Amino acid sequence: MKALVYLGPGKKALQERPKPTVAAPTDAVVRITKTTICGTDLHILKGDVPTCEPGRILGHEGTGVIEEAGSGVTLFKAGDRVLISCISSCGKCSFCRKQMYSHCATGGWILGNKIDGTQAEFVRIPHADTSLYPIPEGADEDALVMLSDILPTGFECGVLNGKVQPGCSVAIVGAGPIGLAALLTAQFFSPAQVIMVDIDPNRLEMARRFGATAGINSTDGKAAQAVMKLTGGAGVDTAIEAVGIPSTFELCEQIVAPGGTIANVGVHGTKVDLHLENLWDRNITITTRLVDTVSTPMLMSVLESHKLDPKLLITHRFRLEAILDAYETFGNAAKTHALKVIIEA
Amino acid sequence: MKALVYLGPGKKALQERPKPTVAAPTDAVVRITKTTICGTDLHILKGDVPTCEPGRILGHEGTGVIEEAGSGVTLFKAGDRVLISCISSCGKCSFCRKQMYSHCATGGWILGNKIDGTQAEFVRIPHADTSLYPIPEGADEDALVMLSDILPTGFECGVLNGKVQPGCSVAIVGAGPIGLAALLTAQFFSPAQVIMVDIDPNRLEMARRFGATAGINSTDGKAAQAVMKLTGGAGVDTAIEAVGIPSTFELCEQIVAPGGTIANVGVHGTKVDLHLENLWDRNITITTRLVDTVSTPMLMSVLESHKLDPKLLITHRFRLEAILDAYETFGNAAKTHALKVIIEA
Amino acid sequence: MKALVYLGPGKKALQERPKPTVAAPTDAVVRITKTTICGTDLHILKGDVPTCEPGRILGHEGTGVIEEAGSGVTLFKAGDRVLISCISSCGKCSFCRKQMYSHCATGGWILGNKIDGTQAEFVRIPHADTSLYPIPEGADEDALVMLSDILPTGFECGVLNGKVQPGCSVAIVGAGPIGLAALLTAQFFSPAQVIMVDIDPNRLEMARRFGATAGINSTDGKAAQAVMKLTGGAGVDTAIEAVGIPSTFELCEQIVAPGGTIANVGVHGTKVDLHLENLWDRNITITTRLVDTVSTPMLMSVLESHKLDPKLLITHRFRLEAILDAYETFGNAAKTHALKVIIEA
Amino acid sequence: MKALVYLGPGKKALQERPKPTVAAPTDAVVRITKTTICGTDLHILKGDVPTCEPGRILGHEGTGVIEEAGSGVTLFKAGDRVLISCISSCGKCSFCRKQMYSHCATGGWILGNKIDGTQAEFVRIPHADTSLYPIPEGADEDALVMLSDILPTGFECGVLNGKVQPGCSVAIVGAGPIGLAALLTAQFFSPAQVIMVDIDPNRLEMARRFGATAGINSTDGKAAQAVMKLTGGAGVDTAIEAVGIPSTFELCEQIVAPGGTIANVGVHGTKVDLHLENLWDRNITITTRLVDTVSTPMLMSVLESHKLDPKLLITHRFRLEAILDAYETFGNAAKTHALKVIIEA
Repeated sequence: MKALVYLGPGKKALQERPKPTVAAPTDAVVRITKTTICGTDLHILKGDVPTCEPGRILGHEGTGVIEEAGSGVTLFKAGDRVLISCISSCGKCSFCRKQMYSHCATGGWILGNKIDGTQAEFVRIPHADTSLYPIPEGADEDALVMLSDILPTGFECGVLNGKVQPGCSVAIVGAGPIGLAALLTAQFFSPAQVIMVDIDPNRLEMARRFGATAGINSTDGKAAQAVMKLTGGAGVDTAIEAVGIPSTFELCEQIVAPGGTIANVGVHGTKVDLHLENLWDRNITITTRLVDTVSTPMLMSVLESHKLDPKLLITHRFRLEAILDAYETFGNAAKTHALKVIIEA
Repeated sequence: MKALVYLGPGKKALQERPKPTVAAPTDAVVRITKTTICGTDLHILKGDVPTCEPGRILGHEGTGVIEEAGSGVTLFKAGDRVLISCISSCGKCSFCRKQMYSHCATGGWILGNKIDGTQAEFVRIPHADTSLYPIPEGADEDALVMLSDILPTGFECGVLNGKVQPGCSVAIVGAGPIGLAALLTAQFFSPAQVIMVDIDPNRLEMARRFGATAGINSTDGKAAQAVMKLTGGAGVDTAIEAVGIPSTFELCEQIVAPGGTIANVGVHGTKVDLHLENLWDRNITITTRLVDTVSTPMLMSVLESHKLDPKLLITHRFRLEAILDAYETFGNAAKTHALKVIIEA
Repeated sequence: MKALVYLGPGKKALQERPKPTVAAPTDAVVRITKTTICGTDLHILKGDVPTCEPGRILGHEGTGVIEEAGSGVTLFKAGDRVLISCISSCGKCSFCRKQMYSHCATGGWILGNKIDGTQAEFVRIPHADTSLYPIPEGADEDALVMLSDILPTGFECGVLNGKVQPGCSVAIVGAGPIGLAALLTAQFFSPAQVIMVDIDPNRLEMARRFGATAGINSTDGKAAQAVMKLTGGAGVDTAIEAVGIPSTFELCEQIVAPGGTIANVGVHGTKVDLHLENLWDRNITITTRLVDTVSTPMLMSVLESHKLDPKLLITHRFRLEAILDAYETFGNAAKTHALKVIIEA
Repeated sequence: MKALVYLGPGKKALQERPKPTVAAPTDAVVRITKTTICGTDLHILKGDVPTCEPGRILGHEGTGVIEEAGSGVTLFKAGDRVLISCISSCGKCSFCRKQMYSHCATGGWILGNKIDGTQAEFVRIPHADTSLYPIPEGADEDALVMLSDILPTGFECGVLNGKVQPGCSVAIVGAGPIGLAALLTAQFFSPAQVIMVDIDPNRLEMARRFGATAGINSTDGKAAQAVMKLTGGAGVDTAIEAVGIPSTFELCEQIVAPGGTIANVGVHGTKVDLHLENLWDRNITITTRLVDTVSTPMLMSVLESHKLDPKLLITHRFRLEAILDAYETFGNAAKTHALKVIIEA
C-alpha cells in the first residue's frame, strides 16, 4: 500500500509498504478514506519528536472503514465506517478509568508516532473498541476528520480547561488551525468576547468570520495593552495559548484577569518565564493538557445538531498520491492560507 | 495606645499612638485581645512590600472585643467578641459577590499594609459586618487567632486549590507555619500520603507530629527522587509550594503526577522557570491565590467539632509590651523553633 | 402615587398611595420606568401566597431611576438608572455569603410580597447596593425588565441546576414565559436537542421560533413516549419542570435518562409522587430552587454581547394607568397569547 | 462445587453445582476465598427482585484467587489475588466511558442476580479486567470484602452524592450496615456533625462507636424535631436515606437545610411523597444512585493508609458449609446484632 513515511529530520517520502494486519485480538485494521496533516507532523519532520523514529508512517487523524476486526473487538465489524481518534485508549488502565486517555498505559498518542499512522491506505488501530467511533448514518466525513484531533484539542485543552462560560471574555493567542478550533468550540458556551491575537492579518480576518469579536495583530508588541483596553482594564477570564513559544505564553500571563485561567494548548520546546512575582496573589489557574479525546461523543452530538461547522477549517484537498503537495501547501500556510487539508485515500 | 510601628526597611518600634475611631458608618473599632506575627510582617520589615509605608502599624491577625461599632454595622455591637479576618471585604463589589474577597475593590489585604493593623491595643476595621466573625461561646481565642490568616491560607491556597481528596498523595514543600497549616487542613480530606519537604530537621520532626506520613530533608538536592520513590514513581497528586522561591516551585514541577495540581501558597519575589517543554502534555494544573478567607465559617465549624487543633502551631507567648522580643523570637525561627507566637494585648 | 394594590383573594385595584421614603440608610427609593406582571402575581391574587397580605403593592420586576439613596448606599446615587432584582440581598448574612440570596436573612423574595413592590410609580428597595444593578449606557430597558426575574429564574433554576451541556438533550415541560426563558438561556450551552412540551399549540409554535428543536403537544397523554422516541429510547439528560403540578413533574420522572437531572422551576401547591421504586437505581438528580439572581451580572454580559434577545418574550405594552387591562391580558394568555407585558410608569 | 442457590421466594439451599468455566475471552473464573451476604440477597429471597430467577447462585461480594483467565484478560493471570466488584463493567460502552458502570450495557449489577454469583466455591466474572481489582501485598481480605459493595455504596451513593464537606452537618437515617458504611466514609471529609437515626438502640450505640456525634431513636416519631434541635434549627446540609421506605425518605425531606442535599441510598419498593409544596423554593438537591464502584481504587488507597477500618462492620464468621446459618444470623440482625458476616470458602 502507499504510505507517507518519515525518513529522519527533513526527510519524508511516499513509499510502498505492506498492508498492516491484526496483531492483537483487540486490534482493527482500517482502510483509510480521509486523513489530514497536523502541525505536529511538521514538528516530527523537523526532528523535534524523539519518540518518532525514521521509517514511521505519519498521521494520527482520519476516517475509514473497518477492513478486519480482531476477535476481541466487540463494537465494530468489517465494513463499519469509523472515526479514528488521535489518542488510543485501552479503557482499563488507571488513567483510562479516570478518563485521562492521553496517558493510557499502552496507548495515548501513539499513532504516527510510536506506531504507524493514518497517512496511508490502511492503518492498524490498537484497542479498537475504545479508540474508534462509529460514524452515524449520513454524517459528513470531511467534518468528522476534524474530530480526530483538532476539535477535541481546541475544546478540551483550551475551552474546557479554560472554563469558558456564558458572558465571559476569552483571548485566544494564535489563530492557526488549533486556535481556530478553540474559537469554534468556545462559542458552545456563549462567551461575550472572544479576542483573537495573531501576527497574520489573513488569519485574523478568518477568525472574524469564525465568530471572533475582535482581532489583534501583535506584530507591534502592544497586544497586551490592546486586550486590556478591549476588556475595560480587567483582562480576560480565559487566555488560551495556541502557539507554543515563550512570548505568547507570557502574553497570556499579562492579560489574564484576577481569578482567570490560562489554558495552554501549544506544544512547547523550551521553558517559559512564569512571573509569580506578579501572579502569586492574582488567584489564577494555569492548565496544560494533551488531548484526551474524552469529549469526542459530545462533539459528535453537537456536530449532528448542526451547531458546529468544522468544515470551515478545510481549505485544500488532495489525493493520497499527491500528499507531498499537501505537505508543501500545509507547510507554507502563511503563503497558501492553508488551515486544514483533506487527503483522500 | 501602644502599637508596633513600621519605620522603614529594617526599622520598627513600639510607639504610643492615638486610639483609632470610627471613620465610616460601616467601620468598627476593636480592642485587641490577642494578635500574632506573620511571615509577611517580616517581608514588610525587609522593605519588600511597597504598599506598606513607614508609620504604619503592622499586623493583620487577631481577636478582640468591639469597642465601638459604626451606625451602619448591623451584625455587631460594642462588647461582642470577634475574630478579625486578615482580608477586609465590602460584600458588594463584583469580586466580593464572586467570593473573591482578596480582590475586594475597597478591601483585600489592607490591614497592617495600607491601613493600620492589629499589633496594637485597638484597630479600626472597615466593612466590619463582612470582615469580622462572632466568636462562639466558649471558643478558645488562641486557636481562633490561627483562623485570621494562616489556616485559611493553608487551606484555601494549598488544600482546596490543590484538590486534596481521600486516598490521594500530597507533598508540601516548606514546613514553616504556612506549610504546617496546609498539613493540618489537608487532613480534613483523608489523603493517603502527606509528604513534607524542608531543610530543617526540627520542622520535619514537627510535621511528623502534625500528621505527615513522611519527611524529606531536601538539603542534599535529591528531594525529587525521594518523592518519586515514596509514590512508586507516580509523583504526587497535589504539590503545595509553601516557600516562595524558584527552587521550591521547580521542585513541585518535578514531582507532580500527570493529572495533578501544583498549588502555590508562597509569596514570590522573582519569576520562576516553568518547564512547559516537559509539562505541556502532562495535564497538570497550577494555581495561585491570595487567601479569600471565604472558608472561615467552615474552619470555625471544624474547629468547634474538635477535628482541628490549631494550637499545635503556637510555640511562644508574649505581652504586647514585649512585642519586640516576639519579633526577635519569630524572626529567628531556625534557632528558636518558633512557629506562631501569641501576643496578648 | 399610583400603585396596583392587592386587596385579598380575587381583589385588586389601582389606588393612590403615598410615595415611599428611605427607611434604612441602605435603602434606595426608585422611580419606576418599566415593570411587568409575573405568574406569581396571579398566584397571590388567587390567595395562594399567605405571606402577602391585603394592602400590599404588587410587583417584583422592573427598571427605574434612583430617586433617593440612603446614606449607607455607596454604589448608587440619585439619577442612576437601575435594574431591580426580584430578590433582595443584604450581602452579609450566611446565605448571602454563600451566594444563596434567595434565602437572605432579611431579604429574599420580599418585593411585592412582604413589602410593597414595583407596580407603582415608586418603590423602596432595601439593601440597595446588593439588590440593584447599574444599567449600562445604551442598554434596552425592555430587555432588562426580563432580567429582574424571568431570565435568571429560567437560567438558574432550570438551565444551571439542570447542568445543560453542549450536545446534550433537554426537555422543557411547560412553554409559558418561564419555560421559554429556560429555552432561551439553555441555548447558551449549545444542547443538541431542546424538546418543548405543552398543551397549547400556539406556545409550542412560539417555542420553535425561540429555538426548540421539537415541540410535543401533551394533550393526548403520550408525551413520555414521544420524548423517548425523539431521544432514541434514552430519555433526556435534563428535564426542566416549568409548570408546577404533579402530572408535569411525574412526566419528568418518566423521561429523564439514567444519570440525568430533573430541574424543578415550577411553583408547587401540593405534593407529587416520587417513584423511587423506579428511580432509586437510575443515578438521577432532582433540584429545586428559588432564584438567587446570582447570575444577573452574567446575564447582563450575555445581553450586551447580543447573544440573547429577551425582547422575544414581550408581547404587549401598557401604561401604568392601564395596568388592570394588563392583568386582564396577561391572565388570559391562552386567548391573548400573552407572554410578558411591559408596563410603563 | 458447593453453592448457595435461590429456589424461588422464601426458598434457598446449599447445593452441589458444576464449577464455572471461561465462557468469553474476557472472563475470569475466580476461586472464592471470602464472601458475605448483603441486604439485597434478602430482598431476592423475598421475591422482590424479578431479574433474579430460581436456580441462581446468589452473592455479589467477595475476594478470591484467579483460577483461570480468558485469553482476552490482560491485567490478571491464574494465581492472582483479587477483589470482586459487585458491579461488572465492560469499560467500553457509553455508560462505562462516563464512569457510570452501574448502567454498563452488558454489566452493571449482574452477579448473583442475572448470572451466578459469589456465594460458592467458584464464580465466573465477565469483563474481568474492569471488574476485578488486584489485592495489594499484605492487605487484609476481611477488610477488602467490605469494598465489594457496602463501602463504595455508602460512599458514592451517600457521601459523595451528599456532598459531605469539612464542617458540615450530616444525618444518616438508618444505622444498618449500609448506613454505618456511609458513617465510616463520611468521616473522610471531616463533617462537624454526623447524626445517626434508627429505631434500634444497639445500632445507635454501634454508630457512636463508629464516630457518630449523636444518635436519635426515631421510635417516638419525633426524630425531625430532634435533628432540628441538634442543628440549631437549621437542618442538616446532607441527609442520607439508608433504609428504603417512604417514612424515612420523608424524614429526610423534613430535616434537610435550605441549600442541602438528600442522598438516597435505600432500595425502595414503592413511591414516596415528595412535598414540593414545601421544598420547591428551598434550593435542595435529591440524588439516587446504584453504586458505580468507580471509587474502589480511592477506597483501597484510603484503606492502605489506615484511615479506614472496615472490619468494624464484621460481626460474625462462618464457613461456606454453614452459609444457611450465616443467612439465619444475618436475617435476624435485630436479635443477633449482626452487621456483616464473613463466609470463608
